[in-house]
Amino acid sequence: MSIVLDEKEVNDLAEGTEKKLSKKELNKLAKAARIAELKAQKLAENQRKTGGDEIDVSAGMYGSYGIVQSAEVKNVEFTKVNQISSDKHGEEVWIRGRIHAIRTKGKTCFLVLRQQIYTVQVMVFVSDKISKQMLKFVSNIPKESIVDVHGHIQNVEAQIESCTQKNAEIHADQVFIVSSSEQRLPLQIEDASRRHDNADGLAAVNLDTRLDNRLFRDILIDRGFVEIHTPKIISAASEGGANVFTVSYFKGSAYLAQSPQLYKQMAIAGDFEKVFTIGGVFRAEDSNTHRHMTEFVGLDLEMAFSFHYHESISLNYLCLKVMHTIGSVLIHVFKGLQRDYAAAIEAVARQYPTEPFEFCEPALVLTYPEALAILREDGVEIGDEDDLSTPVEKQLGRLVKEKFKTDFFILDKFPLAVRPFYTMPDPHDSRYSNSYDMFMRGEEILSGAQRIHDAEFLVQRAKHHNIDLDKIQSYTDSFKYGCPPHAGGGIGLERVTMLFLGLHNIRLASMFPRDPKRITP
Amino acid sequence: MSIVLDEKEVNDLAEGTEKKLSKKELNKLAKAARIAELKAQKLAENQRKTGGDEIDVSAGMYGSYGIVQSAEVKNVEFTKVNQISSDKHGEEVWIRGRIHAIRTKGKTCFLVLRQQIYTVQVMVFVSDKISKQMLKFVSNIPKESIVDVHGHIQNVEAQIESCTQKNAEIHADQVFIVSSSEQRLPLQIEDASRRHDNADGLAAVNLDTRLDNRLFRDILIDRGFVEIHTPKIISAASEGGANVFTVSYFKGSAYLAQSPQLYKQMAIAGDFEKVFTIGGVFRAEDSNTHRHMTEFVGLDLEMAFSFHYHESISLNYLCLKVMHTIGSVLIHVFKGLQRDYAAAIEAVARQYPTEPFEFCEPALVLTYPEALAILREDGVEIGDEDDLSTPVEKQLGRLVKEKFKTDFFILDKFPLAVRPFYTMPDPHDSRYSNSYDMFMRGEEILSGAQRIHDAEFLVQRAKHHNIDLDKIQSYTDSFKYGCPPHAGGGIGLERVTMLFLGLHNIRLASMFPRDPKRITP
Repeated sequence: MSIVLDEKEVNDLAEGTEKKLSKKELNKLAKAARIAELKAQKLAENQRKTGGDEIDVSAGMYGSYGIVQSAEVKNVEFTKVNQISSDKHGEEVWIRGRIHAIRTKGKTCFLVLRQQIYTVQVMVFVSDKISKQMLKFVSNIPKESIVDVHGHIQNVEAQIESCTQKNAEIHADQVFIVSSSEQRLPLQIEDASRRHDNADGLAAVNLDTRLDNRLFRDILIDRGFVEIHTPKIISAASEGGANVFTVSYFKGSAYLAQSPQLYKQMAIAGDFEKVFTIGGVFRAEDSNTHRHMTEFVGLDLEMAFSFHYHESISLNYLCLKVMHTIGSVLIHVFKGLQRDYAAAIEAVARQYPTEPFEFCEPALVLTYPEALAILREDGVEIGDEDDLSTPVEKQLGRLVKEKFKTDFFILDKFPLAVRPFYTMPDPHDSRYSNSYDMFMRGEEILSGAQRIHDAEFLVQRAKHHNIDLDKIQSYTDSFKYGCPPHAGGGIGLERVTMLFLGLHNIRLASMFPRDPKRITP
Repeated sequence: MSIVLDEKEVNDLAEGTEKKLSKKELNKLAKAARIAELKAQKLAENQRKTGGDEIDVSAGMYGSYGIVQSAEVKNVEFTKVNQISSDKHGEEVWIRGRIHAIRTKGKTCFLVLRQQIYTVQVMVFVSDKISKQMLKFVSNIPKESIVDVHGHIQNVEAQIESCTQKNAEIHADQVFIVSSSEQRLPLQIEDASRRHDNADGLAAVNLDTRLDNRLFRDILIDRGFVEIHTPKIISAASEGGANVFTVSYFKGSAYLAQSPQLYKQMAIAGDFEKVFTIGGVFRAEDSNTHRHMTEFVGLDLEMAFSFHYHESISLNYLCLKVMHTIGSVLIHVFKGLQRDYAAAIEAVARQYPTEPFEFCEPALVLTYPEALAILREDGVEIGDEDDLSTPVEKQLGRLVKEKFKTDFFILDKFPLAVRPFYTMPDPHDSRYSNSYDMFMRGEEILSGAQRIHDAEFLVQRAKHHNIDLDKIQSYTDSFKYGCPPHAGGGIGLERVTMLFLGLHNIRLASMFPRDPKRITP
């Protein structure tokens, strides 16, 4: 809020006393100094004018700050755009924001000022205090420039449909450029993946980066997980060398980690009990699809258990099944998003219309044979130990949605043959394994399993898969000195964001997407 | 706690009724089944014995589970080692832990069972319930194996000095191997950097991964920062190409990001206002020192401000100077560590003795000229615009500690000539810049500055530094469309951990250190 001083107050303050000033008084003094400075500028400006020009009554009330180089500390309190409403009618405010839209009609300039996803209308009209010169200056500020606007809040009779702040606007009397945009916005933004550069898209990015991380972390830390960081530079490709990026490493070579799995498991072998890590995961796959990136943000978690990956474990006051812990983390995130970020989700949906995301709690769990039965009922021909193709996954997602009214489910007990060598076989039926995938809108977002924690058995399974044992020795060796039984999984966070919001392309859920054809900016 | 059932209770439960059983009753039933199973095993075992052998009274009460393959869900409640104390005297417990030490003397076996940094003594002695065979089996379990021990808590008269649980021990009657370690522990652990593989070292790693992250995040999120993830694969080396790792990228090349700075600044240009990111940072420096790694975990933060990087900004209920925000984050972490993790810090100090870390609040801020005056007073010859060498930094740290009793301070206003091209010059004295370093125990842990947010001025400064403008165009272009004034910095988290704990080598503060000679495990 601005402080308005009458001349007497200014003089009183300027004359001052020896007594210590309160913060409020200091603030007033600063305002007084600012007003004096502006008046002096205005005077100087007017004096410089030649006879031919009109005197500029607004001199000193508009212009550019130049480069803000930390020359002086100013006591200006800025008001946030989303705090502007009709109940503050008459208040004077300073706002720093971007020019989202600008239009001049006769003696009035309409600005829309934006802060992230919030917008407010600002009016500048020629009057006894606002000169034609000032109107002209404001009209010519390039869109997307950052400006400081001073004025008072004015409530409006008809709602302002084009702004998020609908019942009030700002009548401006000062406008300064903080940082100017170029007149022409760039046209280098060519493919659909970059649409998120506009305001609505920003909301989606925000959602990805701010919300998921925080919600994921909250619940995992609450449940006793320890966050770890795992190295990205590794000496050998853990799963045989396919799809791995090579790095020149001094006189030799190294690789970029395709997954933090080895390190998560080593942390479990090091008695961390429950760990998670959030960070870059690298895949050298030449897949140019709507759902693949070469670098994405992975949430990987791993937890020790006592006897069974379905067992209930006590975690402080909570009691959860191991596999369900992962499911419940996702449900916690879904609920948190719907509860706390309805406005942002709506903003995205306006640009990318979609059905709202549905889920049930606790998560629906289907076994692989149950899923096959549902598919066969719908006419799909598939063998007991066949993997699900991408279109069949989609179809299963649709059928499950019809039957159980959920876009999220867990598929447990995959055939052993279609899972990696380190997956623990089902002890009761050797065709199956203690492994699971999780799906959102018919697309896989998580793959996980109980891992083999016995070095000998792991080597035996690797041999069965014809894997070169030398290449995985550091991995198999990790289990030689005792390791608790454990299970976990890995989630691609951009994929979760994409599917939760019903976006058609994963690049819309990433700030800086990387694919085989794009590594800039 | 175990449930003890008498024969009548077992029979009652076994006969059952049609009525629905409560959870407690089901638990009892499970226990009864387990006891029956164990009795049957014991009987079978005894029957298999030939006349020459003694009958094993402990049959079924010890052995190995084999590979825990999720065959059955068992309702066993495990007690944590750190919950064992004399006030629980007489309670029956199951504990799962590692064998930290093992020693047999006549008819008694002394085990030390470990869970992370906590240890408890377990006694197994031959009695009418515990056979010689069982004692022999237990005595031969390899150190570091994971075992399940059942027994009762017994308080002790003389303190057990060798364990963290000093006033009680466990008298065991069942011991099962969950996961066996190899008999010989590996000797491939050669250099000092790996000492943290033992119990005390684990505490240090824990400290690094669990505490710093959490404490950093808490305060940053509290202060309105948004966490972002920045790509590690980049198309061009942002600072001219030195010290950067090259990645083979399909048919071309890419680089590993040396810093998230460009991306943080783009987020600020995208109106995120305050951002931070925690993740891998890569430096292809062939530096084999105690404080350099080729991959480390960086905490990078960046924030917009209004007019001055020293100004006070309102953050909800807080009011902080921009530069001080970073200092106060570190002080928050120091205080949190000393408050919540005294035991872990002490455990590390036992292995690596050091002076406790001292600091004052708010952080001490010295200007560069002030620091030079202190150094010159101590006989150092240094020019006004010279950089500080590593030994001179150390010396400054010692002098500041003597004078101000703090191991942590901020050095503000570095000479412009020794800072990167994107550093904002001081508006009042062109020899200096709006930049700062932060120091712990005389070593730099953070480097930061107000950045140049004006594209033209940035290009001008880059030219002055003879930087190839083509290589940094995507960086300079980022500021063409308006960007708020902003400042930030980057911290190496392992270095903070090392210096806080007074360790002599950064590898002790990293779970999986990477240097020019080590990229495994």
